[in-house]
This record gives sequence, C-alpha cells and structure tokens, in this order.
Amino acid sequence: MWPGEAHSLKVEKILFQGKSDYQNVIVFKSSTYGKVLVLDGVIQLTERDESSYQEMITHLPLCSIPNPKKVLVIGGGDGGVLREVSRHSSVSKQFFPSVAIGFDDPRVTLHIGDVAFLKAVPEGTYDAVIVDSSDPIGPDQELFEKPFFESVARALRPGGVVCTQAESIWLHMHIIEGIVANCSQVFKGSINYAWTTQLVLCLYTNGVIGFMLCATEGPAVDFKNPVNPLDGRVGDKGELKFYNSEIHSAAFCLPSFARKLIPAKTD
Amino acid sequence: MWPGEAHSLKVEKILFQGKSDYQNVIVFKSSTYGKVLVLDGVIQLTERDESSYQEMITHLPLCSIPNPKKVLVIGGGDGGVLREVSRHSSVSKQFFPSVAIGFDDPRVTLHIGDVAFLKAVPEGTYDAVIVDSSDPIGPDQELFEKPFFESVARALRPGGVVCTQAESIWLHMHIIEGIVANCSQVFKGSINYAWTTQLVLCLYTNGVIGFMLCATEGPAVDFKNPVNPLDGRVGDKGELKFYNSEIHSAAFCLPSFARKLIPAKTD
Repeated sequence: MWPGEAHSLKVEKILFQGKSDYQNVIVFKSSTYGKVLVLDGVIQLTERDESSYQEMITHLPLCSIPNPKKVLVIGGGDGGVLREVSRHSSVSKQFFPSVAIGFDDPRVTLHIGDVAFLKAVPEGTYDAVIVDSSDPIGPDQELFEKPFFESVARALRPGGVVCTQAESIWLHMHIIEGIVANCSQVFKGSINYAWTTQLVLCLYTNGVIGFMLCATEGPAVDFKNPVNPLDGRVGDKGELKFYNSEIHSAAFCLPSFARKLIPAKTD
Repeated sequence: MWPGEAHSLKVEKILFQGKSDYQNVIVFKSSTYGKVLVLDGVIQLTERDESSYQEMITHLPLCSIPNPKKVLVIGGGDGGVLREVSRHSSVSKQFFPSVAIGFDDPRVTLHIGDVAFLKAVPEGTYDAVIVDSSDPIGPDQELFEKPFFESVARALRPGGVVCTQAESIWLHMHIIEGIVANCSQVFKGSINYAWTTQLVLCLYTNGVIGFMLCATEGPAVDFKNPVNPLDGRVGDKGELKFYNSEIHSAAFCLPSFARKLIPAKTD
C-alpha cells in the first residue's frame, strides 16, 4: 500500500506469531513503542500511543448524543474501544458481559458478526455503532460499502449515530470520497468528517486518521458541539489522555484541500 | 534522535549532494514524494507536502494582527515561508527585494543573521517575526534559547508577534516545556501553543509539528481568533492548500495530555 517508502520499528522480542482464521497475527515488544500488534503485516496498535485513536473514535459519537445506552462495536478486537465506551456511565451494564465474551478470542468473535449479525438484530436497536475497522483491503472491505452502511442505519434508532474509521486525508482521499458518497445516500441526518493525529498510525496513515460520523433521520445531531461532554469524568479507567471537548470540536475543522472534497451536512 | 525506529524513502536520483559552511545538504528525487531536501541527514521538506507547515507557521502569526507590514523570517531557507508571507498584501513591497537577496544562496544568507543581526536592528522594527528553524540540536540550538527570544522581543513593536517552530507534542514535550518557560519570561503579551499535521514531517516528528506564538506587551493579540483572515484571498500564489480560519482556531486546541503541560496565557 505504500510504494516508495518504508517505516521500521526495532523488534526486541516477538511475543506471539500465528495465523487466525482471518489474518496473520504478530505481537512484538519494540524498543521504544512498547508492545505492538501487527495484522497481515500492518501495525494496528502500539502501547505508547493508542489513546488518540481509541478515545476519538469512541467519544466523538458517544458525546454527540444524550445518554447513549446501547452501543455496538464492530471490529475493535484489541479492546481499546470497549475500554473507552465503558467510561460512559449511561451505557447499560447488561450490555458489557455479552460483548466481553469476545475477549476470550476477540478477533474471531468480533469479526464473525458483521453484516449477517447486523441484519438479524431488530430494527432501531442501537443508539450508536462504532466501526473500528482496518483498511478497505482484505477482510474489512465490506465495512466500507453501501450494503453495510444500510445494515448499520437499519440497526440504529432514529437520531442514532455511527462513527467509522475513515482513513487519512493525506493519503486516501479517493477512499474517503467513496465513503462520503455511500454514507450520503444511506444516512438522512448529519454527516461530518473528523480527523485526529496518531503517533503510531503515523506508520501507516502518515500521522492522521479520520472518522466518518453519520446520524439517522430523527432528533437532530450536531456532531461539532457535543451535548454529552466527558470533561472531568475520570471513573475507574484513569484520565482521558487525548480527548476533551475542545479537541472534539476542532476535529471537524478540515484543511482547505480536504474541505473542498468532503462536503458536510448538518441537520 | 529516533532510536528504535527508521523511516525510509526510495531515492530515484540524487540531484545535489554537498556541504555548505553549516550543514550537509542533499536534494534527491523520491519515487512518491517528489523532490526532497535533506540537511545533516534529516528530511526538511518534500514537494508533496510542504503546504501545511509553510502555511501554518506564516498565517498563524500574520492573520493574528491587523495589517502586518514588516515581517522578518529567520531560517526558512527553502523559500516556502516567503511565498506565504507574500500573500499578505499589507506587507511592504520594499521589504521583499532585500530578503529575496537570500535566494542567491538562501541557506547562507538567511543563516548568518541570527542573533547578531537581530541585535543590530532598531528596537521595535518588526510587526512579526517567523522563526522557521530546524531542531534544537546543531546550528539552530540558539534559536530555542532565552537570549534569542529576548532579541526577538526587542526587535518587535509593542503588540508584535513571533511564531517559532516548536517541535512535536508526541515526541518532544520536554523541549516544548523549555520553550514555553523561556517565552513566558520574555514575552509579556499572549502566549499560545498551536499544532498541525504533516505528511512529510511524519518522518521526523511523527506527523505533528507545533508552533509557539507569543506577543509583546502592547495592543492585545488574541491568537485563537484571527483578526486578519486570509480566506478567499488567492492572489498570484495560487489557492491556499491547507490554511483557513477554522483550521487556525482549531490549531490551538490541544489534546488533554499536552494541555496539562503547556499553559496558555491570553491578554
């Protein structure tokens, strides 16, 4: 995916190497980034920096609606998104055990659901859906396509929100334009693109990663101005390292070259 | 400076290789980033992405004051900052020729000035000073130290502004804290830290680069809310690729971990 450039981390020790039903998996200890998770040769996560991505993909949607109770996480096998979801005290406790089952083998359990699982849930089940996918090449490709977004829209309540990993404005504008086009056809509420920076994802998105935030028709959602702020709430998960309400709103300010290509729609 | 990691670009052709009085210089054509400028082994600039850094380091200060006329650029030998300064029609035409002399050998001419040059200019000469430095190791080290900031403050008019390259919040927080401490002692007006993302600087700042913006005592400067917007002004330099007023304000919103360590001071 990145002809003409290479990024290397020094491996101190390989902790796990194997093949799941879906992907090649490597976990290694790096000399400066802590433990690193690699799927199909692509770095997904390092200990040194997972906060910005995990916090932003979770709190951008959940802080944009009042009292999120039922939240579906698709992907996110590393568990970081679930850790962040759990900061929202409104999310029903009953919900967690059923998702936490996935932690026995999170990659498999969280992966086999996808579109088939979504089609089976009753219409209007969720307040929010978070799609923590990898790139639109390989097993996650369908998570960037219109039929998937239609299933998500169906599974959301009126005025429900989805936040989906949406690549880098520096590198993948053609992919982003496709996501925006698909979402514009499917979601009848607000549609906004947000972005954040990453230290680790620098290694595969050149430092920035974006999110597509969409709402279904219903009570208006103003993604840029969070109605459900998390500032100051600490809980038992420790302090937020990256997210705050200022950063939330700032995430929707796009550079000129991206603003021209990514239309925003507000209720 | 980056133990345990490496970043590589494929070199198609070396266009220039030599030693100036101050640094080793390489210019090469890369296969995917266009021409690349390397000083002392560190990538400074690629054609594919220079807009975000050049536009932000220039327009953050110049859009924060009304009618900037006299602007001093320190460093910036690649000429990108001068291109951006020239978008501001208020900047006096007489000024440009004398700076443009530097283009005959920009690295040398722009370098020999520094503190000595600043000490010789009459007090209160400039509306704005832009310090487009490289890292605080090697020849640019003094540009991060208190005596230099004192010379800058002296050369600025009351309510004048300085914008200086101020490293990456992901990697160099200890350097940033030092810059903030120095500036807080020297500048009696607003002091704010802003940041932006970079595709190329990803290679040495992991995707983000920051700026320290300070004002001298005098007419109040509110860096977060530009009084001299550039939106829609195109001129003969082509459209702005990155900068707009939204991005200007958003640049001052810091992640929680950085907000704790970098105090802001507003007039």
